[in-house]
Amino acid sequence: MPGTFRVGLLGHGTVGSAFADLLRERAEHVEHVTGLRPELTGVLTRSRGSFDDVLENADLLVEVMGGLEPAREHVLRAMRSGRHVVTANKQLLARFGEELWDCARANGVQLRFEAAVGGVVPVIRVLQESLAGAHVERVTGIVNGTSNFILTEMAREGVSYADALGEAQRLGYAEADPSEDVNGADAAAKMAILARLAFDTPVALDDVRFEGIDHITGDDMEYARELGLGLKLIGTAERIDGGLNVRVHPAFLYAGHPLASVAGAFNAVTVESPAITEVTLSGPGAGGAQTASAVLGDVISAMIPPAQTPPTRERLPFVEDVESAFYLHMEVADRPGVLAQVAQVLGIQGISVKSVVQKGLGENARLVMVVHPVLESRFYAALEMIAALDFMRSRPRAIRVIEAEYV
Amino acid sequence: MPGTFRVGLLGHGTVGSAFADLLRERAEHVEHVTGLRPELTGVLTRSRGSFDDVLENADLLVEVMGGLEPAREHVLRAMRSGRHVVTANKQLLARFGEELWDCARANGVQLRFEAAVGGVVPVIRVLQESLAGAHVERVTGIVNGTSNFILTEMAREGVSYADALGEAQRLGYAEADPSEDVNGADAAAKMAILARLAFDTPVALDDVRFEGIDHITGDDMEYARELGLGLKLIGTAERIDGGLNVRVHPAFLYAGHPLASVAGAFNAVTVESPAITEVTLSGPGAGGAQTASAVLGDVISAMIPPAQTPPTRERLPFVEDVESAFYLHMEVADRPGVLAQVAQVLGIQGISVKSVVQKGLGENARLVMVVHPVLESRFYAALEMIAALDFMRSRPRAIRVIEAEYV
Repeated sequence: MPGTFRVGLLGHGTVGSAFADLLRERAEHVEHVTGLRPELTGVLTRSRGSFDDVLENADLLVEVMGGLEPAREHVLRAMRSGRHVVTANKQLLARFGEELWDCARANGVQLRFEAAVGGVVPVIRVLQESLAGAHVERVTGIVNGTSNFILTEMAREGVSYADALGEAQRLGYAEADPSEDVNGADAAAKMAILARLAFDTPVALDDVRFEGIDHITGDDMEYARELGLGLKLIGTAERIDGGLNVRVHPAFLYAGHPLASVAGAFNAVTVESPAITEVTLSGPGAGGAQTASAVLGDVISAMIPPAQTPPTRERLPFVEDVESAFYLHMEVADRPGVLAQVAQVLGIQGISVKSVVQKGLGENARLVMVVHPVLESRFYAALEMIAALDFMRSRPRAIRVIEAEYV
Repeated sequence: MPGTFRVGLLGHGTVGSAFADLLRERAEHVEHVTGLRPELTGVLTRSRGSFDDVLENADLLVEVMGGLEPAREHVLRAMRSGRHVVTANKQLLARFGEELWDCARANGVQLRFEAAVGGVVPVIRVLQESLAGAHVERVTGIVNGTSNFILTEMAREGVSYADALGEAQRLGYAEADPSEDVNGADAAAKMAILARLAFDTPVALDDVRFEGIDHITGDDMEYARELGLGLKLIGTAERIDGGLNVRVHPAFLYAGHPLASVAGAFNAVTVESPAITEVTLSGPGAGGAQTASAVLGDVISAMIPPAQTPPTRERLPFVEDVESAFYLHMEVADRPGVLAQVAQVLGIQGISVKSVVQKGLGENARLVMVVHPVLESRFYAALEMIAALDFMRSRPRAIRVIEAEYV
């Protein structure tokens, strides 16, 4: 029988309950990876449970209650009594980070907080571990999904700030009171944390200047379109002449910027350092499930001997024949009936055509198609049949096409 | 006097010497982060040094010699004698990964290999740690910078495969013999490693089907442009009906795909999982300095107590006044001399205009400008002066503009 790893949970709102579900669902997998079975041994909510009991029965506490107190006191007591802590509480870290990190070091425990910044984007780990040796020059981020969603909506013609905010609220991307998201304060707290990690210098929340998106008009968006610029709420933390500047403000980005294509309720962070040039991480901003997943990653890291590659499980069967859409390029004789015969062959193999273009005349006649996803074996069977048709001037060429099935 | 951490280096080519330089340069920083001073205590090259001596004097070995043997034997012997190993050797892992990972677990040492896949993109750590609890459905990547550079060049009108390959060789992105890069074999080895980590299933190199970019013509690229598609060499590892498929082939991507905007010698990897939707990591493919930086991140992770946030250093001064380009929107009276007066004010503050558009007539007349980067204090001084001009119909609006200064 394997050992167990006891997890206590502080807070049982959206994130807390999503985490409890995820931990149960993934317990077997976590045991495979770490050698220990995780078990939820206590839950503290506003109305039930005792902190002392939860602490007593846990090897690690997950703090997702939010707010400053009693979260701060609970986290400090847990670490002083030798428990690891995983928290998603950005305000707590932005205000009391130094006290908490000092306490973690003094007590030899881990304090992990990937879920506090960036949604599913693992920027905390990358700054603390992958880039631990690097001299970071600048961190640039879209770290508030709500405002990025609003700006993405407003980029569509005729959508006002009020329309976009309403849509964000309807979809659950914005709170009933969205002030902290749209005035830049939420992004400022996150940038303070990132700046602290990137530069190993104390960063107080008051050091961060911020400006929100609530004054942006449809008119500005229209000019942005004409100029080929996209508008984002950008957080920047950078070294300047031996000093530091951390700020949040709306900014127009040119199309080549790594953050320019980040749309909807996504987060993205670019870290620049001479040795690596830059690395960009992007993904959905925090929802309950995403935050819970980031918390679970932190819990596993606290459980695991560092950087073990777990043993393999059963060998999964290899699937040889997969579906793909295809681009199909044919050099054909310029005569009637060519398209009909190609279409007939495709029909025989159950292949449906998405678009077709006929190009050139005489010796230059070409037929270019994109076909909908089909098993590759069927497509290649059709390709052989087409290659054998007497009007083909050369062998047909095929290249796969990947549809945008992403968010 | 602090303790030291002894690093032995196997291989002293481009990566090895870049790593030796970086370790020296960052030694003080590494000591701040880990509490131990790293020291290069031995180097083995083809012509000098003895493996036994290097091993004897090291707490950790960095293997950047490449090739299968004696790299495999050295790494196994190091781990059996209780040393951590950091390697950048993708062929070694793709062929002998299970043996090596088993050996690391059996001996309780770390085997880290971030530099083997993805250049500066920290995909190994994200798969092994951030997403350790997630059920990964699919990993999609551009994992060969050389072929992505060639395809990016070919996307420009009239650039042939041969031209683009020549340019890649001239810039040092392609070897004199580029076969493994352009035929997909290099990407296949990397996808085998990623699939193993994502799915915890054994993946042999022979399981990975691959196809390269050497048969792509300028003609294909031209049609791609017309269809609004971008061509990339894409590696895919995905679950299909309880099985697995791992493959590498060129593919057309629609503009919305997270990998569609990855240009030049960059790498990028998207990981999809139900709990997180997706996360995308991107950055330059491996050069010597980038690989050395990834190796150093791994070395620090092997030295450090897990996930400590190091104490702060001295407080950096905050710089309040930073440079920025600006978009400037003015509702003006429709009369002669307006542009001249605005330009004069900007000139007084040393602000240079990048572009200007005059729009509308009469009551709708507007002047929209983008100005080159200038200290914010100067820009806002100009803004106040402009606001006071008698032809302004409302307060001028300003939004920062971020230039594409990235690669």
